[in-house]
Amino acid sequence: MAELRPPAVRELLVLLERLPGIGPRSAQSLVEHLLTVASGEVAQLAKVLSEIRERVHLCSTCWLLTEEDPCPICVDSDRDQGVILVVEEPTAAWTVEATREFRGLYHVLLGHLSPLHGVGPGDLTIESLITRVESGAVKEVILATNPTVEGETTALYIARRLETLGVEVSRPAAGIPIGGELGSVDQVTLAQALLSRRKI
Amino acid sequence: MAELRPPAVRELLVLLERLPGIGPRSAQSLVEHLLTVASGEVAQLAKVLSEIRERVHLCSTCWLLTEEDPCPICVDSDRDQGVILVVEEPTAAWTVEATREFRGLYHVLLGHLSPLHGVGPGDLTIESLITRVESGAVKEVILATNPTVEGETTALYIARRLETLGVEVSRPAAGIPIGGELGSVDQVTLAQALLSRRKI
Repeated sequence: MAELRPPAVRELLVLLERLPGIGPRSAQSLVEHLLTVASGEVAQLAKVLSEIRERVHLCSTCWLLTEEDPCPICVDSDRDQGVILVVEEPTAAWTVEATREFRGLYHVLLGHLSPLHGVGPGDLTIESLITRVESGAVKEVILATNPTVEGETTALYIARRLETLGVEVSRPAAGIPIGGELGSVDQVTLAQALLSRRKI
Repeated sequence: MAELRPPAVRELLVLLERLPGIGPRSAQSLVEHLLTVASGEVAQLAKVLSEIRERVHLCSTCWLLTEEDPCPICVDSDRDQGVILVVEEPTAAWTVEATREFRGLYHVLLGHLSPLHGVGPGDLTIESLITRVESGAVKEVILATNPTVEGETTALYIARRLETLGVEVSRPAAGIPIGGELGSVDQVTLAQALLSRRKI
């Protein structure tokens, strides 16, 4: 069998297949697209990719992705400096911001505690969160880590660390997703929703 | 609502979402990956993307993707110069080659006839195929266009054009896929398989 795919195509296929969610078939259809679309599109993609790691960094205060440091959120005096919402990843903050329900500051942990994978408190940005809270302006910390075992453990650990600092610590409610069907909600979520039932 | 995604991230998301099979969620997970993976990986992807359109072209004889012209297949004297297998797209030839059952030459049409979309014979590489057949060495043409209405129409058109040139013209058999279940085969395929039945 001869190799019909030119070297550059094989190189691109290998690199594309390393990306999350892209298998051999989707890599091939991406290559077909990239070889037939206007070449300016491909050049633009190559340019942004070559610059992205230079341009985008983590804010050294809240660890959101940003091109300036501190990030525009941290320096926005219109936002409530008294509330910090803690998430595991920068993209989780994007989702929270899209709700338009939160006007405080963020803090990204850059992961969750996971002793099995050797991730301890020192591998996250927990000390940096404590320092921010100790600075005095913060009145409430919302621990919006993921509702997973690791996320819960991480929230619990941070809550304990914040205990003596005189701030209110909360966690978003767990329950039945709005628009969801009761019959298709998993048991753990449903149990939590029943425990947290509210009078109407 | 503030914009938490830095400009470079927004640019990359827009470009990624234009790619086939990539929606907002997969674009976001790609960006997360590209911002956390070793930056050498991203630089390599940017480099190959910036070069791919310069390096890869179509062979001016058979229209396969290649970095040399004519392509390695066209100049390979070990291959049977008397048989040309016709496909719609270069990637279809990759699949044929992977069967290890074909040792002749290829011809890529770069599409199929589609009057509705304004694609006529002049928009495909049909004249270039006729010229190759007229050159004399070719004894058989296998029309492996897709088993779709457009693919069948295209095969029929080319077969008619080749009629007076004294070459054998064939088409791969349509039938039940090996390993497939009779009950799950569509009716058109099954009807074709019954019409093309072979004595055992």
